Amino acid sequence: MFSLEFLTGVSVAAGTLTYHVIPKFRDMFLKANLFGIDLNKSSGEKVPEATGVITGCIFLMVTFLMIPFTYSDYLLQDKPEFPHQEFVHLISALLSITCMLLLGFADDVLDLRWRHKLLLPSMASLPLLMVYFVSNNRTEIVVPLLLRGVLGSSVHLGFLYYVYMGLLSVFATNAINILAGINGLEVGQSLVIAVSVLIFNLTSLSGLSRSYHEFSLYFIIPYIGTTSALLLHNWYPSKVFPGDTFCYFSGMTFAVVSILGHFSKTLLLFFIPQILNFLYSLPQLFHLLPCPRHRLPKYIKEEDKVMMSMTKVPEKQIKKIGKLILKVLSGLGLVELSVVASPGAENLVEFNNLTIINLLLKFSGPTHEKNVTLVLLLFQVFCSLVAFMVRYPLAYLLFGEIVV
Amino acid sequence: MFSLEFLTGVSVAAGTLTYHVIPKFRDMFLKANLFGIDLNKSSGEKVPEATGVITGCIFLMVTFLMIPFTYSDYLLQDKPEFPHQEFVHLISALLSITCMLLLGFADDVLDLRWRHKLLLPSMASLPLLMVYFVSNNRTEIVVPLLLRGVLGSSVHLGFLYYVYMGLLSVFATNAINILAGINGLEVGQSLVIAVSVLIFNLTSLSGLSRSYHEFSLYFIIPYIGTTSALLLHNWYPSKVFPGDTFCYFSGMTFAVVSILGHFSKTLLLFFIPQILNFLYSLPQLFHLLPCPRHRLPKYIKEEDKVMMSMTKVPEKQIKKIGKLILKVLSGLGLVELSVVASPGAENLVEFNNLTIINLLLKFSGPTHEKNVTLVLLLFQVFCSLVAFMVRYPLAYLLFGEIVV
Repeated sequence: MFSLEFLTGVSVAAGTLTYHVIPKFRDMFLKANLFGIDLNKSSGEKVPEATGVITGCIFLMVTFLMIPFTYSDYLLQDKPEFPHQEFVHLISALLSITCMLLLGFADDVLDLRWRHKLLLPSMASLPLLMVYFVSNNRTEIVVPLLLRGVLGSSVHLGFLYYVYMGLLSVFATNAINILAGINGLEVGQSLVIAVSVLIFNLTSLSGLSRSYHEFSLYFIIPYIGTTSALLLHNWYPSKVFPGDTFCYFSGMTFAVVSILGHFSKTLLLFFIPQILNFLYSLPQLFHLLPCPRHRLPKYIKEEDKVMMSMTKVPEKQIKKIGKLILKVLSGLGLVELSVVASPGAENLVEFNNLTIINLLLKFSGPTHEKNVTLVLLLFQVFCSLVAFMVRYPLAYLLFGEIVV
Repeated sequence: MFSLEFLTGVSVAAGTLTYHVIPKFRDMFLKANLFGIDLNKSSGEKVPEATGVITGCIFLMVTFLMIPFTYSDYLLQDKPEFPHQEFVHLISALLSITCMLLLGFADDVLDLRWRHKLLLPSMASLPLLMVYFVSNNRTEIVVPLLLRGVLGSSVHLGFLYYVYMGLLSVFATNAINILAGINGLEVGQSLVIAVSVLIFNLTSLSGLSRSYHEFSLYFIIPYIGTTSALLLHNWYPSKVFPGDTFCYFSGMTFAVVSILGHFSKTLLLFFIPQILNFLYSLPQLFHLLPCPRHRLPKYIKEEDKVMMSMTKVPEKQIKKIGKLILKVLSGLGLVELSVVASPGAENLVEFNNLTIINLLLKFSGPTHEKNVTLVLLLFQVFCSLVAFMVRYPLAYLLFGEIVV
């Protein structure tokens, strides 16, 4: 499909361009009211928000321009067997990513509601699913050994498989978005995931599914270039914020390459920190427990450190199931919980907001923001290493064969 | 490919949805600073701007959802000859339109520079050109009879053909955007053009290029539905403004269907008012004459009418070539020009801003805004009728055959 040297060159060029272009848009973003105040700094400076739209646009421009080079062999030598299906996959992947970039930017600008945040990725994954349906429609999955007695060796999921793929897009886009709030975390975790995908693709190039992994590399290598450039500006202390735009764009890029590259289950292994954070956040996300608008850590100005942020509400405002969850989590040492009795008034319940950032801070105590990001990114790297270690043995254990 | 009844049903549904959704976003747009003040009203009310992003998104959603229905014959009956090439065209057309919607919205939000306005449509047309290159690469044009002695019966334009297609996208997106400034005009003219394309496609369905025209209908019919709904809100007095988003989105939709539908020259015939306005605007667009930020007509509060807007500058600020242009246009009666001599000070030159809206007002005198829009839209309809009348005789005269 292409050479790795070519892709790397393109990626470096795109990264350099991104790095130089981002600061030029600063004033435009501020003028357009697209900025945030960094709550973990004392300066109160305006920081451009939603700059993911810049990296996204450069990523798209580059991947568009790569198309004719990728297929130059077929075009110049008049090979008859032009790979139409692969080409449709490429274009539809770009379509889904572009859609998500548009919707992410619309979200940053218009501050859409939660229902839109679930609806939009589903909408953006439509072209992908349509193309999958039209050109592939392979919905059978291999059944784990244990269940083969009941289900046979493979099951056709049919429509359910599309639901799964749609949900994967929704999950990937939002999971990055809710593990956020401190400088460099959204962009950093995306970069770690992208590099993990890159390594997985490279190590799988010799297998039977070579073309799938080449397909993924086509996107992941330029993605790494533009995202690295963004990280340089977004690293502590952040000069720009990536915005929902970036999180959505990244999530969809991962979803797209893993779906069309047939490694969506492996991708989920690279999302372990996001899955843990999602599970831990569930009680607040589904309003079983009160959820404030921002759950990011609290800034301690005097020490220039951050500590876990707490939610404090009258006991009556917490549902029964919420109380049970708090009790269990507290028993497991996974939540900081206190009940403040005030004579004559109602008891107040206080607990840390349920993100793994706050959980980390519960154990570590007040920490410098940069170090929190670093620890979380190291955790992401660690999880990827675990993922690589378990992937093949796990596949062997479950399926009795190496499923690539 | 599909039935006209189905497309019409989809179009009506999309239009109804658009009509009901637009007002719901009003507060979100105002809160996001995405509004304009209608300069031709005395109320000073805030009007949501860039609502083209809503119609655009609904248009995309609908055209995405239509894909599996369109190809259901191939999918359900397992016909072997799935039309891959046609399908790639469909997806790439959607990709170009989505790109332009994104870039238009970015322009409305960030207020991009002029150079971006030319760069962006070129970028958004890239996927289209790539796909054209990869899957078609037919760049020969039929030579008019008069020139056949010199050039032969057809010429391979090669790279130049891509330049032409790129320029067509740039022109279509910007031409609608500069014939703007009064309630209902951008959306109204786009609707007239779309209906003209529709009629042209329908009357050509019996010819050899049936599939090209079916392809165009796939987009144009839902486009008409969503755009009509927008027009109802944008008609005098406007409750919403369409924004650059809408103009770019519309222009690219027209460019895409005409390029992949192989009727780009016919499309230009439907753009006659825009071409006239563009030519008339050239001296100001290229800064041969001073160009203010807004060139829309001037509001006369007492009469609730609009009159032509003027630019007034010291004579020294006008370049020689600018003076020549003003002289020629004034001699032809196409510009209102006056030189105000003030004793002791410099002469002031005053001329109407060069848009056909102001030109109309020069002839008509102060007119109610709604009537200006109506007259201009009737002119657009008239030009389309002329286009239909000249298209076939013109083709016969130039090429000695009916080129469809």
